[in-house]
Amino acid sequence: MSSSTLSVINTLKQPTRWEWVEQALAHLNIILLDHSHCERKAAGVALNLMFRYPSNTQLVRQLTAIAREELEHFELVNQWLERLGIPLAPLSAPPYGGGLAALVRRNEPERLLDSLLVSGLIEARSHERLGLLATHCPDRELAEFYRSLMASEARHYGVYWVLADTYFERNVVKARLEELAIQESELLATLHSEPRIHS
Amino acid sequence: MSSSTLSVINTLKQPTRWEWVEQALAHLNIILLDHSHCERKAAGVALNLMFRYPSNTQLVRQLTAIAREELEHFELVNQWLERLGIPLAPLSAPPYGGGLAALVRRNEPERLLDSLLVSGLIEARSHERLGLLATHCPDRELAEFYRSLMASEARHYGVYWVLADTYFERNVVKARLEELAIQESELLATLHSEPRIHS
Repeated sequence: MSSSTLSVINTLKQPTRWEWVEQALAHLNIILLDHSHCERKAAGVALNLMFRYPSNTQLVRQLTAIAREELEHFELVNQWLERLGIPLAPLSAPPYGGGLAALVRRNEPERLLDSLLVSGLIEARSHERLGLLATHCPDRELAEFYRSLMASEARHYGVYWVLADTYFERNVVKARLEELAIQESELLATLHSEPRIHS
Repeated sequence: MSSSTLSVINTLKQPTRWEWVEQALAHLNIILLDHSHCERKAAGVALNLMFRYPSNTQLVRQLTAIAREELEHFELVNQWLERLGIPLAPLSAPPYGGGLAALVRRNEPERLLDSLLVSGLIEARSHERLGLLATHCPDRELAEFYRSLMASEARHYGVYWVLADTYFERNVVKARLEELAIQESELLATLHSEPRIHS
């Protein structure tokens, strides 16, 4: 297990429950379609931060790389959808993203700190859940695909953490991450009825 | 001259005037910084269309490729900025983008048609102007850089045109492109006081 994987696992306050794995495995087509949306949204989040903080050189550089990679993954997931004959379609979002967005404080510099940490937590959770799919998905090729993506999610978590650590005092970052990580786990405490990556 | 370059030149109703070339050459640092913003904005426009039309498979596929390429160019322009010691910074936008956005009709399917054609026209104009910089920039290496990017702009124009032609009748596309192209040239008829790619 790599050190970045360990650090991601330590960040999440509660592991995903088996209930989610069962729900996901029972609806793999919907999970794959939702995964496509997640990759596009992740690219959008990175790009929005680049628009909001155009002078922060480190942030712009690192998030450009993340946005490019998310778009590459978006393409790869869409190739899977095409191969399985699943048409692209909109999907309702689970409460998770909106719940996390509501935790981002409105004023700077807190807004930047919270935005980075919330993005990092989403990447950490995605890493954990893609790992669960990689382990339990009965289609070995699809399982391998999930395995190939999960390392990037851990790396992206690391990038968001390092950016927070670049622009803020470490004790401030750690304290706020602790608070947000508790809330992140609480948002997933009740399984959402619609199968989603973050249900 | 490639056929795509010819087709781009035929689309623009009025060529850029020499006045703009003089303004740009006198402020190459600002033009380079604005170019960085243009590449990021172009990626944002492609991504926004992917969010707005998530079920349009051709659109999603083609615009993912465009967004990825714009982000790659954004990185390349930023490397030039770093090399020349120009810090990343916000810049006020010229009236061009807002003027074109105002021409996009609000209701579907006209909104999709206009969005594709306006994006195509911006790419066409960027192609023309990067070509002017490639020809007249006194720094030969920077001139070569502009030359290396201008072919993509022509290709992106082609992608937006083909997408419009995919989702709409060709005579409708041609008639609307004609109208929008006239307005696009009118927006540039008076040189904006701040040097910009689209001033």
